[in-house]
Amino acid sequence: MALNTLTDTELGDVYAFAVQLGKDAGKLLLDAATSRFGGGGQQVFTEKDNAVDIVTKTDEDVEAFIKSSIAQKYPHHKFLGEETYSKGASRDYLIEKDSPTWCVDPLDGTVNYTHLFPMFCVSIGFIVGGEPVMGVICAPFLNQLFSACRGRGAWLNETQRLPLIRDPVPPMPANAPGGCIFSCEWGKDRKDRPDGNLYRKVDSFLNMAAEVGGRGGKGGMVHGVRSLGSATLDLAYTAMGAFDIWWEGGCWEWDVAAGIAILQEAGGLVTTANPPEDAATAKIEDVRLGSRLYLAIRPAGPSTTESGRQGQERTAREVWRRVRELDYTRPGA
Amino acid sequence: MALNTLTDTELGDVYAFAVQLGKDAGKLLLDAATSRFGGGGQQVFTEKDNAVDIVTKTDEDVEAFIKSSIAQKYPHHKFLGEETYSKGASRDYLIEKDSPTWCVDPLDGTVNYTHLFPMFCVSIGFIVGGEPVMGVICAPFLNQLFSACRGRGAWLNETQRLPLIRDPVPPMPANAPGGCIFSCEWGKDRKDRPDGNLYRKVDSFLNMAAEVGGRGGKGGMVHGVRSLGSATLDLAYTAMGAFDIWWEGGCWEWDVAAGIAILQEAGGLVTTANPPEDAATAKIEDVRLGSRLYLAIRPAGPSTTESGRQGQERTAREVWRRVRELDYTRPGA
Repeated sequence: MALNTLTDTELGDVYAFAVQLGKDAGKLLLDAATSRFGGGGQQVFTEKDNAVDIVTKTDEDVEAFIKSSIAQKYPHHKFLGEETYSKGASRDYLIEKDSPTWCVDPLDGTVNYTHLFPMFCVSIGFIVGGEPVMGVICAPFLNQLFSACRGRGAWLNETQRLPLIRDPVPPMPANAPGGCIFSCEWGKDRKDRPDGNLYRKVDSFLNMAAEVGGRGGKGGMVHGVRSLGSATLDLAYTAMGAFDIWWEGGCWEWDVAAGIAILQEAGGLVTTANPPEDAATAKIEDVRLGSRLYLAIRPAGPSTTESGRQGQERTAREVWRRVRELDYTRPGA
Repeated sequence: MALNTLTDTELGDVYAFAVQLGKDAGKLLLDAATSRFGGGGQQVFTEKDNAVDIVTKTDEDVEAFIKSSIAQKYPHHKFLGEETYSKGASRDYLIEKDSPTWCVDPLDGTVNYTHLFPMFCVSIGFIVGGEPVMGVICAPFLNQLFSACRGRGAWLNETQRLPLIRDPVPPMPANAPGGCIFSCEWGKDRKDRPDGNLYRKVDSFLNMAAEVGGRGGKGGMVHGVRSLGSATLDLAYTAMGAFDIWWEGGCWEWDVAAGIAILQEAGGLVTTANPPEDAATAKIEDVRLGSRLYLAIRPAGPSTTESGRQGQERTAREVWRRVRELDYTRPGA
């Protein structure tokens, strides 16, 4: 593991810095949000790709604050942020294996933020050797700070360890996806194209939701279907154990780096959204950051018949049996 | 208006009592939730109608607390609670026009609560003359208290007036439902029946989500689609202005009474989910509590070309143009 480029003490220092950075950036976000309450503070939005994809001045300001804070403290670390990337000439995969890299979304849940729906956050991931080893997510309107560092546990508000229900952590339900909360997002690809991503997603949602026995045997009768509009928070709530399954395509690295670090440290499983050819038996690989296709399963304890990991893998296979392949490539790929 | 059965002073007293009751009941909920963190506190769930419809001991305990608190303070008021109703012999419509009635869901977002997803709350409505005139919603895991009383404004945490963005309140978007956050729920009816509620809902969601010009002209290209799993909180976030549109069928009175009171006091519009025959021109009626079919539009200010109410009505008609009729009747109806 490439953590050997950092001593444990150095990693601890980086973690303390990252947590404080998350809090400070979260306060910037909240101040910007509350300045819009009551009189006056109307913001101007510029449209990017379409009406769903907007970027705010806050987004840029918070990224600039985070980027300069990191550059001052750790001048040799690399930085990948949503705004930096969007404005860059290159659309290549920018996470380098050779340098510790910060992977930052200054404002995840942009649409939520513009409407002041509280599910928005700053998301700060730290990547060593290509693997997210640290994550800090601050959702200031919810008073929620999620944080994790490899080997140091995953935490809510620095005091409550994740997942919330532990000693023991509940096993995955025997009839999963039955009994599960399924988290998914409608996303930005709304093209009314036969067999496009919109229809592939809805087919998948329907299979997960429908009664057992329905949908040609694919009905999953999940306990609930949830859509929050923030990939980062979807992952954080999966780490919490509140969501059992999160399935999504189209995310970028900054949408998921911090959340993956937190979920993995909490004991969750993250693999690919798209079913492999032999979904029932294929080896379940850990997700590759940058794949844009993610399936996350919450932390799980053992049952009388299987280990926690076995329960997670069984659940992943049951999801793959019900979802369609999504078509998200990288620009230029 | 039947408020004439209560003086303004009496109504103020009831409001102060209701807010404190919401806080106390919210604390009970949070204590029960946090008792499940860490070691030991596993709860036993009994299944009601199906795997989606569960009831917890907390649900019953909190309702008993609220019911007895009200009976002690206001012995002549009627009480309608989810648990009381479920166990009762009668399935008739229980809101009486002649007596002030408390309409209470001790735990809305039961599925969220069992999974410890923070979107759960206690919901306390107060009905006079058949109309919800007061609402208190406490979501203790989110530190959010919503409250309203007719003539006294709608509030978040007693200090921040709703909607959040005001002076001026933004008009509905000129291209609504474009630019809107659309809130909807998958619900409990998951029957894989051609043209059943599940497919009617998904058809409607797809029309709202798809690109403009798609879906045979019905594509609404909403800004985002959200599903929280709590009708009460959907209404509260619509009152906040965070959600522009909420559309749902199948709710009971206790799911919506408090939320409707808060949304209406904030300046929102609540009418029926099912499109009337002449959706483009029909008079837009205020919703009838007990109809089980709800369409809510956020508070809206005037634009240069229309009043706030005109913008809300235009949006309601644009929703009706895109949604299917849902089939929810009352038992025995």
